[in-house]
Amino acid sequence: MTTTLKQYEPVAGSRILSVGAARGNLVVTNEDIAGPINSSDEWIQKRTGIVTRRRADRDLSLLDLTTQAAQEAIEKAGLTGADIDAVIVSTVTSPYATPSAAAALAHNIGATPAPAFDISAACAGYCYGVAQADALVRSGMAKHVVVVGAEKLSDFIDETDRSISFILGDGAGAVVVAASEDAGIAPSVWGSDGERWETVSMSRSILDLRDAAETARRTGDTSALTDPENKLWPTLHQDGPSVFRWAVWSMAKVAQEALDKAGVRAEDLAAFLPHQANERIIDELAKQLKMPDTVTIGRDIKETGNTSAASIPLAMHRVLQEDPSLSGGLALQIGFGAGLVYGAQVVRLP
Amino acid sequence: MTTTLKQYEPVAGSRILSVGAARGNLVVTNEDIAGPINSSDEWIQKRTGIVTRRRADRDLSLLDLTTQAAQEAIEKAGLTGADIDAVIVSTVTSPYATPSAAAALAHNIGATPAPAFDISAACAGYCYGVAQADALVRSGMAKHVVVVGAEKLSDFIDETDRSISFILGDGAGAVVVAASEDAGIAPSVWGSDGERWETVSMSRSILDLRDAAETARRTGDTSALTDPENKLWPTLHQDGPSVFRWAVWSMAKVAQEALDKAGVRAEDLAAFLPHQANERIIDELAKQLKMPDTVTIGRDIKETGNTSAASIPLAMHRVLQEDPSLSGGLALQIGFGAGLVYGAQVVRLP
Repeated sequence: MTTTLKQYEPVAGSRILSVGAARGNLVVTNEDIAGPINSSDEWIQKRTGIVTRRRADRDLSLLDLTTQAAQEAIEKAGLTGADIDAVIVSTVTSPYATPSAAAALAHNIGATPAPAFDISAACAGYCYGVAQADALVRSGMAKHVVVVGAEKLSDFIDETDRSISFILGDGAGAVVVAASEDAGIAPSVWGSDGERWETVSMSRSILDLRDAAETARRTGDTSALTDPENKLWPTLHQDGPSVFRWAVWSMAKVAQEALDKAGVRAEDLAAFLPHQANERIIDELAKQLKMPDTVTIGRDIKETGNTSAASIPLAMHRVLQEDPSLSGGLALQIGFGAGLVYGAQVVRLP
Repeated sequence: MTTTLKQYEPVAGSRILSVGAARGNLVVTNEDIAGPINSSDEWIQKRTGIVTRRRADRDLSLLDLTTQAAQEAIEKAGLTGADIDAVIVSTVTSPYATPSAAAALAHNIGATPAPAFDISAACAGYCYGVAQADALVRSGMAKHVVVVGAEKLSDFIDETDRSISFILGDGAGAVVVAASEDAGIAPSVWGSDGERWETVSMSRSILDLRDAAETARRTGDTSALTDPENKLWPTLHQDGPSVFRWAVWSMAKVAQEALDKAGVRAEDLAAFLPHQANERIIDELAKQLKMPDTVTIGRDIKETGNTSAASIPLAMHRVLQEDPSLSGGLALQIGFGAGLVYGAQVVRLP
């Protein structure tokens, strides 16, 4: 017996309908954080382009930021939560291993019973989420997908770390991806290089902290926990020079490939929205790609800092707010980070 | 100027080519774990169907299990890592918030530079991963996707918890999903109910332990850490009776919907592969769905325990090993768990 299985009908294209943004409620200056890293406002601005970073206080959770950004995107799309039939949250900073932040978000926005899941792809997570949303829409599995990149990185920083902690901020950016007759999202160029898994990573396994805490609870021996040199809470670290070279050289090639696969040239773009890792990387990427002056370059990092998965939609939100005439133009977006992983695609701006 | 964007060409269908399995290296009996929950082998077998659960020792990591399962699946498909162009790991027990386990797995199996990401959808995670793999393949974005459900749940259990810890095991199950001319994966029925986010969840936020450890390190006050009643390490808990009712009543409807969308009846199935949560749930689901005696029901739970995202591919691996004649027949698979989230689809067995 060979029973034929049915399947959903594919659709021609997908596009981004709208973008929403939420940033941490605290404005943290370079002066505020320079002391523990023995640095200065001048040095930080020169090396990273960051003037302030936005962070969230204790009362503003990852889920709060996620919900704010998603609600704005849904409203701007002229939709309600009931129209959303898939919810994707890209994050590496949820304080709960399970359930997903996405399941709580789906409830918060009134999208229940939409499928909801978190993805872990670090600073490439938003572009990974857009790739998946595009696949879900074109394969006929969803009509309106919310993709949120959201991080509360300030929960996982070491204030004495000079490699990455001082550049990190908190925020969420969301887009609604929907079916369309034309391609509004070009082929995603995405990948990984797991041989370099430790290049950007947590300082240690969370199980080290568990073991020390369990020893303290069972035996009263807290020495591993009280040693001031023994930082058991995992925080983000990176090999900065190595990341810089990879981001500039390898990611310029990935970005060019995304342009080629979309069938467009840099001159056709309205905006270039790279991950807001460091303004020096943004400058170098733009130079490698020979971005003409007519292309608006996202530089949200100056005020918001590096918000990992949130940084590209936050940059998109800012360029559209500052210049609404960009709407309908093409943007090249590229994310890259811990894994190492990367993702890029040309999209039509909402 | 309206530049037309290119997109990948869709393909007609996708199918599961192969399945691989890895179980924890320790056989843990009911006698071994009955003491701290004041229970017995008889009671545990009667209530859950579990005779033993498999757990991994300290030297067998989540990534080890993940790699073993994926390698078996790739070899059985007659492929090598270089053929794999997307890697999805569903897990909620990675000891590192970032990078993803998937990026490390891609490197271990020789799939670099394939895109690689983890997803968080708890016990529905494997079915969520298959849904995404189906979308990636049918939308033309990938030709061979490895989907692994992998958990080392023993890292997140409380040996005195009577709600869920005692049923949990460690393992990984993997499938390779590939393009095909016919539909080998029918429409996925997947969703969430985030209003019930706390029904199956971690006992607390990981930030509580961070705060206590930081207080101890900065001030020497270790009282929160040494109180034997104050368990700061997050562990899994559930409202068992509530989950039981939801799993039986709501999931029977989801399973029936997956059959309907596939265009098949229970009598057309070769196998029924529900999440291995509890054998009583499996029995009730089979009863609700009026599964005929001709349908083989996955009962890997008896020897392996509940391995969350790994449980369905482990059950698939076992039924095919015990009865190779099932190969090519149809199977209904359904996962459900923390979120709450659920996912189901009819697939053709490899």
